[in-house]
Amino acid sequence: MKFRRSGRLVDMTHYFMDNPHRQVPLTYFSERYQSAKSSISEDLTIVKEMFEAKKIGTLETAAGATGGVTFIPSVDEETATTFLEELCERLEDPDRILPGGYLYMMDVIGDPTLVQSIGRIFASRYRHANVDAVMTMATKGIPLAYAVASQLNVPVSIVRHEHRITEGSIVSINYVSGSKKRIQTMSLARRSLKPHSNVLIIDDFMKAGGTIRGMMELVHEFQSTVAGIGVLTEAVHEEEPLVDEYTSLTKISQVDAKAKTIKAEIGNLF
Amino acid sequence: MKFRRSGRLVDMTHYFMDNPHRQVPLTYFSERYQSAKSSISEDLTIVKEMFEAKKIGTLETAAGATGGVTFIPSVDEETATTFLEELCERLEDPDRILPGGYLYMMDVIGDPTLVQSIGRIFASRYRHANVDAVMTMATKGIPLAYAVASQLNVPVSIVRHEHRITEGSIVSINYVSGSKKRIQTMSLARRSLKPHSNVLIIDDFMKAGGTIRGMMELVHEFQSTVAGIGVLTEAVHEEEPLVDEYTSLTKISQVDAKAKTIKAEIGNLF
Repeated sequence: MKFRRSGRLVDMTHYFMDNPHRQVPLTYFSERYQSAKSSISEDLTIVKEMFEAKKIGTLETAAGATGGVTFIPSVDEETATTFLEELCERLEDPDRILPGGYLYMMDVIGDPTLVQSIGRIFASRYRHANVDAVMTMATKGIPLAYAVASQLNVPVSIVRHEHRITEGSIVSINYVSGSKKRIQTMSLARRSLKPHSNVLIIDDFMKAGGTIRGMMELVHEFQSTVAGIGVLTEAVHEEEPLVDEYTSLTKISQVDAKAKTIKAEIGNLF
Repeated sequence: MKFRRSGRLVDMTHYFMDNPHRQVPLTYFSERYQSAKSSISEDLTIVKEMFEAKKIGTLETAAGATGGVTFIPSVDEETATTFLEELCERLEDPDRILPGGYLYMMDVIGDPTLVQSIGRIFASRYRHANVDAVMTMATKGIPLAYAVASQLNVPVSIVRHEHRITEGSIVSINYVSGSKKRIQTMSLARRSLKPHSNVLIIDDFMKAGGTIRGMMELVHEFQSTVAGIGVLTEAVHEEEPLVDEYTSLTKISQVDAKAKTIKAEIGNLF
């Protein structure tokens, strides 16, 4: 079946969005549409220009026999700022203050559209970091981790506090939770992360950074390296965080359970 | 900024994929591209024809002042069958047999591309079911639930075995786990599901169906109704399952830990 340019553009856009960070040879499209490579090249120029005009990302082209075109999604600073300002406003809703000064966050993390936007911002931030895998802590980090990983086209490793019989052999470490100074255990299934991976750690929340430090240690137990660390919300803490380099999208500087106020601002992303 | 048809088609396709199951007024696009409504209508016809030709889904148009166009993603039987046959082959890999006959599944559930395809199949199956929310059980159901919910444009409610202080008031029920005949507790944060919702239950695994039955009960505790039940894998069980109507994508009929064989086939989807 032969397709006109207009149809090809619709299908190509769909294909790229479904397959970010994956190199596609031009022959794939010329066979898919029964079209000459020169027409496909022109199509790709149109898609690329529009992706860039609309700040969706870009198409990167690699020449040669092993070459092809790769969709690299990105989020520009203006779009990210607008999104994060709105998110901060939502975070300041006093209704989320729970007894003990904890914050209810499932209205944010339970919203797949919001989670996907968050995932895109992290994926954009680490788009040139050669990420091989995303690691997160069960359970609230999981939606965020998948949103990032699907944009970067890499697998997810889920770290847990408890052991599960359905995970096979596991690697465990003990770590000191930063804020409570309690010794805890975290573990990861041996086969859920390939050795020598470059791992992006994603979590929903960071206070003292003890959990993140634990995950960094776990990464090293798999002979792997840390590509980066991204947290949705960091809570300003009296002590220095245990982690030096990380990206936070939002920062909560004050929770006053009595006055029912929360102060949220954009984190250190930019 | 004015855009040509080719550019509009790229951006529209991107927009629809980002916003499935969301009605968009035509004026949105005519303002976005500074184009006449008649041109936008022609664009939409092209997008719709291509989405249908490539089995991506369809555009549904509602006329009138409150009208607009909605992208309904779908997966045709042939595409789903090919995908599920490949999945069954992967499930039959004897390496996933763990001590006690348990199966390691994180290679499947840890793969975001695969998870998104699974999400699309469920979202297609329940696309006319007026789903208001997706409910799942932590932790392995979470990735699947988000993949379905993002396609249906609805929030996710995560049920847990343990209580968390960061969830505020919760609703708990006791239930009998089907295979082990043990009394267990599951709970859901009061504010994570709106009363009178129509809830699609998604889980990774079903044996006797006790957990699913528990979630159905929890749905009723929220004055809500069950829109449907979807499980990635059902294990054939000696007794009748506790759940009557459900959709399973795959079915594991035999796990022989000694001979190291697994038999997997397509579930009851079609």
